[in-house]
Amino acid sequence: MQHEVDGRARILTAARSLFSSKGFHQTSMAQLASAAQVSVGQIYRLFKGKEDVIEALVRVDSDAWTAQMTILRSRLDAKELSVEQAFEAMLLHSTDEKDEALSFEILAEAFRNEAVGGMIGQLCLGFRVVLRDFACVANPDLTGEALDAAEELLLACMFGLGHRTLSRPKLPAVIAAKRAAQMIVAGLKAIR
Amino acid sequence: MQHEVDGRARILTAARSLFSSKGFHQTSMAQLASAAQVSVGQIYRLFKGKEDVIEALVRVDSDAWTAQMTILRSRLDAKELSVEQAFEAMLLHSTDEKDEALSFEILAEAFRNEAVGGMIGQLCLGFRVVLRDFACVANPDLTGEALDAAEELLLACMFGLGHRTLSRPKLPAVIAAKRAAQMIVAGLKAIR
Repeated sequence: MQHEVDGRARILTAARSLFSSKGFHQTSMAQLASAAQVSVGQIYRLFKGKEDVIEALVRVDSDAWTAQMTILRSRLDAKELSVEQAFEAMLLHSTDEKDEALSFEILAEAFRNEAVGGMIGQLCLGFRVVLRDFACVANPDLTGEALDAAEELLLACMFGLGHRTLSRPKLPAVIAAKRAAQMIVAGLKAIR
Repeated sequence: MQHEVDGRARILTAARSLFSSKGFHQTSMAQLASAAQVSVGQIYRLFKGKEDVIEALVRVDSDAWTAQMTILRSRLDAKELSVEQAFEAMLLHSTDEKDEALSFEILAEAFRNEAVGGMIGQLCLGFRVVLRDFACVANPDLTGEALDAAEELLLACMFGLGHRTLSRPKLPAVIAAKRAAQMIVAGLKAIR
């Protein structure tokens, strides 16, 4: 059993690195087995196929994000964080993601693979609930279309700041997250 | 000569559709030739290889974006548009992009292909200049780090709103762009 857990973890680690550097479709099961130091047969005992490996990666990342959001939401509820600090932490977590190449691979795959598309959609629904809550804390008068639009724009900010490497950013992530959180809260307070 | 132009256009149209539906690496030159109704030899007379085809697609999109930005900037300068309307038009143009799957393919490729990465970087520099100008029109007092952060966040908003299909958006693009532009201008005015 422990052997299986180790094998699974090694396969996922190797997959993350290979899918990121070579791409999902350009990585063969033989290369994955070799990098994970397991046999191709062992991969197929643990995963239905390469699609199943990418789904497992998305599930791991998605669970980590959900846990992070739950923590931020409780800390905001407990008033341990101001709403600006909660946004800042969320944006910083987003910019901290290092696997951007892999993320784009997964997003492209999500348009062709229903299971992956469904997981991304589900994760975004979770983000939407939390971001909407944060928006209401920043401005309790927000309702209707204005609130829907705030939710939409906040999700866009998170996604955009988390995928900015190719855009040649000038500011370090820590400063970008702090300043962006200030601007977001100011914007939310000013609309109705 | 006209024959060559037609062939090139047909190849790019077919490539856009195939790279989007099947992915860049899963499309063979033979499939591309067949979809474009040209011979594989003709593709190689017009393009160095598949990388060169994807570079041509990025160049076409990049030129279209640059033209669009130049128009918006002149209309803002000529006071034909308010800064809110300029943001709205820019965000709407961004959400109007239909080829999100292809866009993610290209972004993943940009991490592995220097020419593609360079073109994306260059396009973003162009966006940065215009967004920074827009931010200064919205709030002429913005300088230094606050202005850099505004530029960063505006680029993130554009990118995020332009890639929202998988996130199960609730609002139509027209309303999202209009409301987002209001929130952005309010946020820009409120910071220093």
